[in-house]
Amino acid sequence: MPEIDPWGDVEVGDYSQKMQDFGIDPIEDVENKMPDNYLIRRGIIFGHRGLDKFLEAKEKGKDVAMMTGIMPSGVFHFGHKSVVDQILMYQEMDAQITITAADIEAYNTRDISLEKSRELVIEEYLKNYVALGLDLDKTDFYFQSEGGNNYHLRSKQFAKHLTQNEVEATYGSAAPGKITSALTQYSDILRPQFKENGGPKPVVVPVGVDQDPHIRLTREVARKYRDADYYKPASTYHKFMRGLQGGKMSSSDEKSYIALTDSPEDALMKIDQAKTGGRDTLKEHREKGAKIEEDMVFELLTFHLIRDDNELKQIREEYASGEMLSGELKQIAKEKLSEFLVEHQEKRKEAGPIVKQYLKER
Amino acid sequence: MPEIDPWGDVEVGDYSQKMQDFGIDPIEDVENKMPDNYLIRRGIIFGHRGLDKFLEAKEKGKDVAMMTGIMPSGVFHFGHKSVVDQILMYQEMDAQITITAADIEAYNTRDISLEKSRELVIEEYLKNYVALGLDLDKTDFYFQSEGGNNYHLRSKQFAKHLTQNEVEATYGSAAPGKITSALTQYSDILRPQFKENGGPKPVVVPVGVDQDPHIRLTREVARKYRDADYYKPASTYHKFMRGLQGGKMSSSDEKSYIALTDSPEDALMKIDQAKTGGRDTLKEHREKGAKIEEDMVFELLTFHLIRDDNELKQIREEYASGEMLSGELKQIAKEKLSEFLVEHQEKRKEAGPIVKQYLKER
Repeated sequence: MPEIDPWGDVEVGDYSQKMQDFGIDPIEDVENKMPDNYLIRRGIIFGHRGLDKFLEAKEKGKDVAMMTGIMPSGVFHFGHKSVVDQILMYQEMDAQITITAADIEAYNTRDISLEKSRELVIEEYLKNYVALGLDLDKTDFYFQSEGGNNYHLRSKQFAKHLTQNEVEATYGSAAPGKITSALTQYSDILRPQFKENGGPKPVVVPVGVDQDPHIRLTREVARKYRDADYYKPASTYHKFMRGLQGGKMSSSDEKSYIALTDSPEDALMKIDQAKTGGRDTLKEHREKGAKIEEDMVFELLTFHLIRDDNELKQIREEYASGEMLSGELKQIAKEKLSEFLVEHQEKRKEAGPIVKQYLKER
Repeated sequence: MPEIDPWGDVEVGDYSQKMQDFGIDPIEDVENKMPDNYLIRRGIIFGHRGLDKFLEAKEKGKDVAMMTGIMPSGVFHFGHKSVVDQILMYQEMDAQITITAADIEAYNTRDISLEKSRELVIEEYLKNYVALGLDLDKTDFYFQSEGGNNYHLRSKQFAKHLTQNEVEATYGSAAPGKITSALTQYSDILRPQFKENGGPKPVVVPVGVDQDPHIRLTREVARKYRDADYYKPASTYHKFMRGLQGGKMSSSDEKSYIALTDSPEDALMKIDQAKTGGRDTLKEHREKGAKIEEDMVFELLTFHLIRDDNELKQIREEYASGEMLSGELKQIAKEKLSEFLVEHQEKRKEAGPIVKQYLKER
């Protein structure tokens, strides 16, 4: 799938097959109307469904919105940061930004109390979001548990347009906790189109491919709901950064991620231990060059630490040719990471009072 | 089951078996603590579960509540009136009265729009309720669609405490529309115990035996919910008046019921056509007397038109002995009915502005 992964920097996996199976279009089809953003240039966002309508409306100066959710599940790490980078892209496009904190879903499916969710969302997510550049004053942020009467009412009405079969096929069972979570998410996704939020408009939801069945069902519900003329939500699909050791990045495996609140010392240690694409011997490395696709440090640079394409390209060439060693690559990453974390954590401190004030004034 | 049907006026059906199956206690067990009400004396309310705790709390001067729902499904007839008579009994006991209009349920399971539900509830139910004696100022009346954020939030949290199996066993399927309706009803039933309504207290819900599985599941949910210490709701069980032609009274069969908004002329015609327990010939009637249990006119007198036990007893004796003919019984019923309807419809007119004002001020 070279056409949607021009840099070859990011693991492609079986995305190509999934795109065919699900009917996801390559992002290239609409790239000329999208902002010139590294997420798209580097193939991190690789596919979409229905984004053309969103972009057409935007071109015509009409209202558009992007919607995403926070599932409170531990510390905020670089895997989560990709979502924020996408939010910022749409914020720059002047899309309405809607962010829900999925505390009802966490309660029903992960046994996390509403209070615990609130704490996690504020400390781990909101403060980091603001530090990364989210403008809360232009954002509709809310907890699902405080979504309001109409928000909950809509989610209950959406139930009418779902069958037990659809639910079981999409979510694996028709357990009430799962159904309730799904219905609440439909309200989240359609919320920017509620009358009180300015009425129907194109909305985009950035997701991973694994969430596509859920998106398709939401589109069906939007289509069938007759009490309002909602646009079917558009979606984009992004790749997930792998864990530092290779494999999945997971909140339950501390060595797999770097949290944005990790001390620089701890973070640099994790770089030292990260899986690289270096060869077994210096001789072999110089001859064959690094296996870039298997290098988690290079993946971190690509996803997060280097925004300048030329800089990344040069490193890639030197590393792939064997001129640069894994240790040298790690040294570059450590310097960038250290600088990023120090600066970010300073901004996060400043974000604290901003978040507090925002939640107070809502 | 003579001990719970002392008057023998009301069809017993297979209630006895159901009581055993479901573990419903005879109302006699707590009758001495209940008000002296014809609904109990005549065995119309015949069973209960957990009402002893409710009555004990009441005796100690503590807060108690009764909760019931309105399913908007056409005209308000004498079958519905029995529920109002029960509300009035609890109103006289100074219980908090909570009445929900089940417009979400009607939307999801009967395809009735929220607007249509609202109209039906006001015209057919609320105005008649007030005409019959409901004191709206002491009532927490609300539409499910306007139950408020916390009300909906609770119903979603209750989903955590239900399995798909329980839902399928109780409601026949795990269709999202059914699950949503059931969860919303749990919030209705537990609403009098919400913090904003004074916190946990004994609540009674009058139902028909067919709704018992639903009540039992609500009790389970109340027990399992850990974010508040709710009392498990108590319930009473009442008999249903049969249709005028015998068989089921049904909103979809106009001849089976008398609406409280029927013109006296129309209503009297229905009495003329009602099924009686009279014998085939005058001779046989005089010899054997009427079959009281099969007489729908006598049932109407028992359930609604005669409040004086002695008067009803005397009619029963004369009719059962053959001294009174079906035509004579009908004549009595027609006079009582005519008088009732004229007076009620006058009161209903006066109730109009009261209901309007109440809904405006909420």
